[in-house]
Amino acid sequence: MGEILNRLKSLRKRMNEEKIDFYIIPTNDYHGSEYVGAYFKAREYITGFTGSAGTALIMKDAAILWTDGRYFLQAEAELKNSTIELYKMGEKDVPTIVQYLMENAKGKTIGFDGKSLSLEFYNLLKNTLKDNAKFVFIDLIKDIWQDRPLMSCTEAFLLSDEYSGEARSAKLSRLEKVLEKHNINAHIITSLDDIAWLLNIRADDVKCNPVLLSYLLYNNKEYTLYVNNKALNKDVKATLNKDGIKIKNYDDIYEDIKELNGRVLIDPNKVNAEIFTRLDKCNVVKMMNPTTEMKCIKNDVEIKNSYLAHLKDGVAVTKFIYWLKTNVGKIKMTEISCAKYLENLRKMQDNYLGLSFETISGYDYHGAIIHYDPTEETDIEVLPKSFLLVDSGGQYLEGTTDITRTIAVGELSDEQKIDYTLVLKGHLALGGAIFKEGTNGGMLDMLARKPLWEHGLDYKHGTGHGVGHFLNVHEGPQRIANSAVCNYPFKKGMITSDEPGIYIPNKFGIRIENLMVCLDKETTEYGKFLKFDFLTVAPYEREAIVKEMLNEEELTLLNNYHKRVFTELAPYLNDDERKWLFDVTREI
Amino acid sequence: MGEILNRLKSLRKRMNEEKIDFYIIPTNDYHGSEYVGAYFKAREYITGFTGSAGTALIMKDAAILWTDGRYFLQAEAELKNSTIELYKMGEKDVPTIVQYLMENAKGKTIGFDGKSLSLEFYNLLKNTLKDNAKFVFIDLIKDIWQDRPLMSCTEAFLLSDEYSGEARSAKLSRLEKVLEKHNINAHIITSLDDIAWLLNIRADDVKCNPVLLSYLLYNNKEYTLYVNNKALNKDVKATLNKDGIKIKNYDDIYEDIKELNGRVLIDPNKVNAEIFTRLDKCNVVKMMNPTTEMKCIKNDVEIKNSYLAHLKDGVAVTKFIYWLKTNVGKIKMTEISCAKYLENLRKMQDNYLGLSFETISGYDYHGAIIHYDPTEETDIEVLPKSFLLVDSGGQYLEGTTDITRTIAVGELSDEQKIDYTLVLKGHLALGGAIFKEGTNGGMLDMLARKPLWEHGLDYKHGTGHGVGHFLNVHEGPQRIANSAVCNYPFKKGMITSDEPGIYIPNKFGIRIENLMVCLDKETTEYGKFLKFDFLTVAPYEREAIVKEMLNEEELTLLNNYHKRVFTELAPYLNDDERKWLFDVTREI
Repeated sequence: MGEILNRLKSLRKRMNEEKIDFYIIPTNDYHGSEYVGAYFKAREYITGFTGSAGTALIMKDAAILWTDGRYFLQAEAELKNSTIELYKMGEKDVPTIVQYLMENAKGKTIGFDGKSLSLEFYNLLKNTLKDNAKFVFIDLIKDIWQDRPLMSCTEAFLLSDEYSGEARSAKLSRLEKVLEKHNINAHIITSLDDIAWLLNIRADDVKCNPVLLSYLLYNNKEYTLYVNNKALNKDVKATLNKDGIKIKNYDDIYEDIKELNGRVLIDPNKVNAEIFTRLDKCNVVKMMNPTTEMKCIKNDVEIKNSYLAHLKDGVAVTKFIYWLKTNVGKIKMTEISCAKYLENLRKMQDNYLGLSFETISGYDYHGAIIHYDPTEETDIEVLPKSFLLVDSGGQYLEGTTDITRTIAVGELSDEQKIDYTLVLKGHLALGGAIFKEGTNGGMLDMLARKPLWEHGLDYKHGTGHGVGHFLNVHEGPQRIANSAVCNYPFKKGMITSDEPGIYIPNKFGIRIENLMVCLDKETTEYGKFLKFDFLTVAPYEREAIVKEMLNEEELTLLNNYHKRVFTELAPYLNDDERKWLFDVTREI
Repeated sequence: MGEILNRLKSLRKRMNEEKIDFYIIPTNDYHGSEYVGAYFKAREYITGFTGSAGTALIMKDAAILWTDGRYFLQAEAELKNSTIELYKMGEKDVPTIVQYLMENAKGKTIGFDGKSLSLEFYNLLKNTLKDNAKFVFIDLIKDIWQDRPLMSCTEAFLLSDEYSGEARSAKLSRLEKVLEKHNINAHIITSLDDIAWLLNIRADDVKCNPVLLSYLLYNNKEYTLYVNNKALNKDVKATLNKDGIKIKNYDDIYEDIKELNGRVLIDPNKVNAEIFTRLDKCNVVKMMNPTTEMKCIKNDVEIKNSYLAHLKDGVAVTKFIYWLKTNVGKIKMTEISCAKYLENLRKMQDNYLGLSFETISGYDYHGAIIHYDPTEETDIEVLPKSFLLVDSGGQYLEGTTDITRTIAVGELSDEQKIDYTLVLKGHLALGGAIFKEGTNGGMLDMLARKPLWEHGLDYKHGTGHGVGHFLNVHEGPQRIANSAVCNYPFKKGMITSDEPGIYIPNKFGIRIENLMVCLDKETTEYGKFLKFDFLTVAPYEREAIVKEMLNEEELTLLNNYHKRVFTELAPYLNDDERKWLFDVTREI
């Protein structure tokens, strides 16, 4: 703990030299990525708190860490003797960091590394504090962090058209057309999945996200990729150059954008605060990155390959379920060992490149913790009763998967069966939805929650998120949730999750998740109608289904899906597995 | 037709004197009411076109009338030889009036009566034309319309607390609290239903809307009602005065508001352009009238009385259905005679005060015309086959009703039965919805359309509108429709219609409509849940229901409702009617 005190001391010395009263350290890389690499873990370095979310505020003679309910216990333990106070987000009477600054920072100077601060958060700060505080953009951590790890720099590789379905040059010219339509002179892309999609390039620079740490600048009809030179081999460089993309050093973008003028497009939900403040000579046009809207519509090659990726993933998950049910109570297994077993099954699949997110493996009462991520401290044994909830996914050259199965590892209570069936009803209703063009995720959400609401139940998370293609498992702009904000209409080619759940604290949790692709259903004189088709192929938990609670339409959806699951998976299973799958997928 | 030419000539003379190049004559009263009284029918006076919607544009040597699809034939006939051109709204290559002015009025002067122009339309004009045209607020019609009818001035009456459920003084002080919360100095209410609700006052100044032609001004904690002095008898005046409401002449508000200053609240969707332009000394705060949000939440007395009003209305409608089915083919009946028969049945009910809107009575292929309003020219005989669609409602002291029944007057085709059942499925699903607090009409809409969408069908209107309490049959802010704009959350006490439909052009139309009140369902650890309860009591069309298409939940909803219909209506029917109702409401 002496280490943390020394780090705080060094930081305060630098704050004093720079006349900074409050120094904010968020948990971000420069690109707003979902996972933060070792180089960017400044908040962990300063506070000693290792959780994945939190914001530190360092003052002359006090320090506070804000984090959310998932991490209260862990943060309390890790902050012990650090002199850093824990502020529990969401608890009664606990101010947010912005409220805290509003109360305490009037007339003072607030510093932060603008590259690590999202523009969204900076705007919130600015709009709340207005002229009551002075803001200084400065990275003090880099001055004091002696043994800071290097920034990730993995070898980038290009996706052939066989996997991307659209040549780089075609994507670039589609983007240019959109930019021209809006009379845009320059466009800065900082979100790594947008860059990866646009350039048909992948790397391994962010955990679970196959992306390349880089920025992309479009200016005067020219593209420049800012990237660590070592990440690109000769062939990759040559190919990019051939498509008219210049290569410069990763950091150089911050100098280069100071020279931009005219209409400059940025996505205010994606760029960091530093980027924005360097555009004061420009007419900044704030809108969603055009690549985000282009990327979410999967092309025919991507869709075809997605079915293949999901078939391989379904084989791994189904083999896992069989293994689990056959061996539970006979060999020792824990949440973590189960997750590892499943990961190994995925590794046996062709073109598997890693997990698409950290596996959630929650046994019994741990299943009720929505974002449960088992650690050595929390890991518990899986015994032959109750549910094991496993939410996991893989990255394949052919696509990204994300599946949740809540598996009966032994006897279930009636409550567990009833709740499982309610979740299944909602899951099937959404997956079977047929809807008119223009319908958005706020409107569709009702279908998944209806059976739960009728029983006074609900789940405190969205019902569906967009999924990238061999890219980030969470992507926009579409989303399904009980919120008027979900107003982006569904379109043919979008891939989205369908994952309602029920969580009974300290007892058990249930979630059922498939990915589904949006397809054309039909066009009639009344308009164009869309539908979903499940990509995920793996059996639901037959032992947990109360048949009497399903109506005819639900039974048809269930039986048709199970029939497809058996037909598609059977060729890849051994005799025992196949026999078992036949049994659990037979008509109910 | 010489009359119209003379009127155009007089108007053009005045336009010339005032140096006005384009004169716009919309179809509005000064309050944005749904129906326009005789005094306000300036557009009809100038053009000779008698339809309920349309906008005239008079120029030096041309004149155009814009109207919508309902009126193309009628307008063509009525405009013959008038020299006025018809512009068919919504048809390909037909510009809107704003587009037309954008093309033709650059550098010119556009005039209109600002009291008859909605602020919304004026803002659209201004934002489109910007500085390219000059706008002049002037009522030229009043100078040339010699025999103009008087403005409606019916005798106002006060609602006792027994009917309003909340004393005037209580409503006034509730409103004041909201205004104080927003630091409002003055507030102008021009929408007649808001005034009627707030003051517990009613009159008969707008067709089907029991409202008083008036304005209400709140300024420096004082209320002034601007109204034709003759509309208020001594007692009404005394009572209003006692509650601190001053009375002034109807027109005086336009002078008075010029003197306002400070923060003035207006509802930009309700006030006319003239009001707005007289507030240039003020800090105008644009938001929904607080009374609109208060009015939509019916209190316990209003809800109790609404059930009573709907029971009486259900008796009338049910007697009508029996009469229709028993007599069709035996006595001559037409769409209009049926509507009149039904109106007479309503007149026999206690405290009935008139229709809540013009009855839609559409036989067979006329049923497919969504806003069909039979006239002597279009009226057809009702024969013993197909459907008669009747959408009608009444004003009672205890509440406002609105019901649609699609009645089999003889043999139906299979297509008619299937489509009826699909509409019924959606109607029952929405009426039976249980949903979490915060859910809005955009999210609920899906329930009503789902069965139709699954068959490639849809209807081109909203699914539900708010309904006033012994007030306007259409009121906001809640609405159910397939639109992200329907984002006002449902709250306990709201009354809304549930009216999906199917319209097969030139063949038949089906709509099923009940009103429903939003009530508390339960509060669990997952939040507060709401439900709907049908207010309307009248049987659905048993002959048109295909039982096999209904699932168990739908059958339960249907049978429970029919059981309630019989139980509640039976005491008010004669033996024959009761026997018949028992038969058509028995369990399916």
